Amino acid sequence: MARKASLSGFPEHLPQERLVENFVLDTLRETFELHGFSPIETRSVETIDQLLRKGDIDKEVYAISRLQEDDSRGKKEKLALHFDLTVPFARYVVENAGYLNFPFMRYQIQKVWRGERPQEGRAREFTQADVDVVGDGELPFRYDVELALVMVDALSKLPIPAFKLRINNRKLSEGFYKGIGLEDTAGVLRSIDKIDKIGPDAVAQLLKDELGANDEQAEAAIKLAQIKTDDTSFVEQVRALGVEHELLEEGIAELEEVIAETSKRAPGRVLADLSIARGLDYYTGTVYETVLVGHEQLGSICSGGRYESLASNGKKTYPGVGLSIGVTRVVARILSQNFAQASRSVPSAVFIALTNDEMWSSAQDVADNLRSRGIACEVSANAAKFGKQIKYAEKRGIPFVWFLNEKDGVIDHQVKDIRCGEQVEADPTSWNPPAEDLKVSVTAVGE
Amino acid sequence: MARKASLSGFPEHLPQERLVENFVLDTLRETFELHGFSPIETRSVETIDQLLRKGDIDKEVYAISRLQEDDSRGKKEKLALHFDLTVPFARYVVENAGYLNFPFMRYQIQKVWRGERPQEGRAREFTQADVDVVGDGELPFRYDVELALVMVDALSKLPIPAFKLRINNRKLSEGFYKGIGLEDTAGVLRSIDKIDKIGPDAVAQLLKDELGANDEQAEAAIKLAQIKTDDTSFVEQVRALGVEHELLEEGIAELEEVIAETSKRAPGRVLADLSIARGLDYYTGTVYETVLVGHEQLGSICSGGRYESLASNGKKTYPGVGLSIGVTRVVARILSQNFAQASRSVPSAVFIALTNDEMWSSAQDVADNLRSRGIACEVSANAAKFGKQIKYAEKRGIPFVWFLNEKDGVIDHQVKDIRCGEQVEADPTSWNPPAEDLKVSVTAVGE
Repeated sequence: MARKASLSGFPEHLPQERLVENFVLDTLRETFELHGFSPIETRSVETIDQLLRKGDIDKEVYAISRLQEDDSRGKKEKLALHFDLTVPFARYVVENAGYLNFPFMRYQIQKVWRGERPQEGRAREFTQADVDVVGDGELPFRYDVELALVMVDALSKLPIPAFKLRINNRKLSEGFYKGIGLEDTAGVLRSIDKIDKIGPDAVAQLLKDELGANDEQAEAAIKLAQIKTDDTSFVEQVRALGVEHELLEEGIAELEEVIAETSKRAPGRVLADLSIARGLDYYTGTVYETVLVGHEQLGSICSGGRYESLASNGKKTYPGVGLSIGVTRVVARILSQNFAQASRSVPSAVFIALTNDEMWSSAQDVADNLRSRGIACEVSANAAKFGKQIKYAEKRGIPFVWFLNEKDGVIDHQVKDIRCGEQVEADPTSWNPPAEDLKVSVTAVGE
Repeated sequence: MARKASLSGFPEHLPQERLVENFVLDTLRETFELHGFSPIETRSVETIDQLLRKGDIDKEVYAISRLQEDDSRGKKEKLALHFDLTVPFARYVVENAGYLNFPFMRYQIQKVWRGERPQEGRAREFTQADVDVVGDGELPFRYDVELALVMVDALSKLPIPAFKLRINNRKLSEGFYKGIGLEDTAGVLRSIDKIDKIGPDAVAQLLKDELGANDEQAEAAIKLAQIKTDDTSFVEQVRALGVEHELLEEGIAELEEVIAETSKRAPGRVLADLSIARGLDYYTGTVYETVLVGHEQLGSICSGGRYESLASNGKKTYPGVGLSIGVTRVVARILSQNFAQASRSVPSAVFIALTNDEMWSSAQDVADNLRSRGIACEVSANAAKFGKQIKYAEKRGIPFVWFLNEKDGVIDHQVKDIRCGEQVEADPTSWNPPAEDLKVSVTAVGE
């Protein structure tokens, strides 16, 4: 990708790149549906009040206004573009609860907007792919396992390097901090969240300077965050730190169940990582992050967690668990590292050449025949020299060129594989390309 | 659809409605690809300068701004959400011309935004599906025929009533007006555009009051607009009006070719309608509009035309021809008139019941097996009574429930069609649902 976006933070793709992106989007959609998730879309805008309920993100939000707003009709609610798909989903659930079946499993693949400074892996307009399940009042804990497995399945099918789903549990961390006497657990989590960026020593200093931790407390918090195991052995490592708290026990039990099941069903894909905090404070239990091995600096490509009361209409609460894939981030990396390529730059498998201008309608008949059998094709718009028409197909990577020759009122059909030059007689009502040439394929390029 | 959008003009669908919308979107995409069109997406925002170049639409545009914009860094370009896909496509072509193969055939299915007063068939956020082909400097006329046929093919596959593609040619109309001495052809077109709304007498009065036409000129212009034929007989009707002009002859010849070919290849679907004007002034030849027969008051569901120089970088021009389907308008009508329904409200074909809590992992094994063979399914999250679990499946329209029974360490598998009650032994590695139950199907409901 030598090209740069003409508007910083608003990436656009060439057609052959869009085919790769579509492959990713189709794969995610198909996987989510195989796991039983229903598609929804929410509007792109929310009221600003709704968007800002969840905290300190106002400077990231894009407000919208009509250029010639008629202010005379009284103050209207201010609108802004959504910055994620969780807040709109929560509103959607509360608004439509009477029409939904719970537990409600939905996926949602849409653009979101954030006015952040653009950098690699961070755009101002980007696509997220979310799966969530929400219950009416309660939601079985098993979905914490199931949602992780859905995303492992989805990511496994993408042309990306090995990935690790890192899992922690807020109850475990918060219970531990309370157990060592640090009561501002949100503050501790915020500091711990920086451990990958600034290192353990700097985080320890932060805990002491900003949260009043003593040396022992800071040391214990850092030790907890450094526990990473690909099985349930994290349990004894936590116990070895000798801290006791009811919430800690609950968190250990939950994380143990999640790691036991996911490591069994998706070996090598998951890691208990007790440094994972997730910035947003609506998570209340399991939290997830995902990194591409060898591309950790790209940041998390798939994150989420359990929330006990994201959505509420005052009387009822709707607990849920969900994860979100940063599609634009993943696709940008696939393209910039050339992890995958489309087999051709256009959907057409066949280019129908024109012998002379009068054959255009017969050529359209061939096209109708092929299309009715699912074979994508184009008809040449003019009867240029065959060499020129073949070059047209070649430039686009179209594998087959179809020729029509009229002799004594009968049309002779031939089709040529322009990669090898082989040309054969063909019947437009029955000829088929080899299965691998029928559709554009997107294949991983060897690393 | 008893539900109303919670924000006027920003419609949202329930999951079973979204399945219908996805069927429409998938059908369009598949058809466009069968015709050789490549997918692209453009960013949702353009600079306001770019958007306003094409005339008087500023009050429809939604500008965007960061809530806490840092104005100190100098004046930045103002951004707004795009109101159609043609203007962004024109910019995209000019920016990427060096990377594209011409003629460039692309489709684009995206949201657009217009701050208009919402009413039936007109939303503030809606989806358009566009196909265009653009040439580098020139574009063969045959694409004017081909693009109409692509849209006829696409619309024919949707669960909608009969439709008519109404076609005219700007050269024909403008040449005619010049031939009768009316030089403000854009003004005449704008008046003629109102003929369906206000009637021919009122339009004749407009022509006289506002454009200085005399009785004969007004009468001739009205007579031209009243010509509608489903074959090329419009030619003699125009000639009978006795007007002569070079541009008129060019327009007659072009429209004759388009109607001759399209009426042959898509009989009953097209109409030469010499009242079609299209408001936007960048069209220069063929213009198209499409109405659902019996739903004319809904307005056009698919419109477009030929433009000689929509995109230009100063040195080069990129002529094109394209049409745009108002997907949201079509889907809203399908849903409100119940033209089509989804066969179930969730993707799952199979619901895997839990006999007891310990069977969850074995149930997940069954699910893995089914999914690996493309069968969408869900595992029950808890071992409620079978009656309750079956009711869960029933409410969602899931046709099959899978039961696992462990006896002496061996698992016995059975699957029940809960519509008829038939229950049979089943092997998770080979059982398949009937083909018609595999995926959610969307079928037209008899009118």
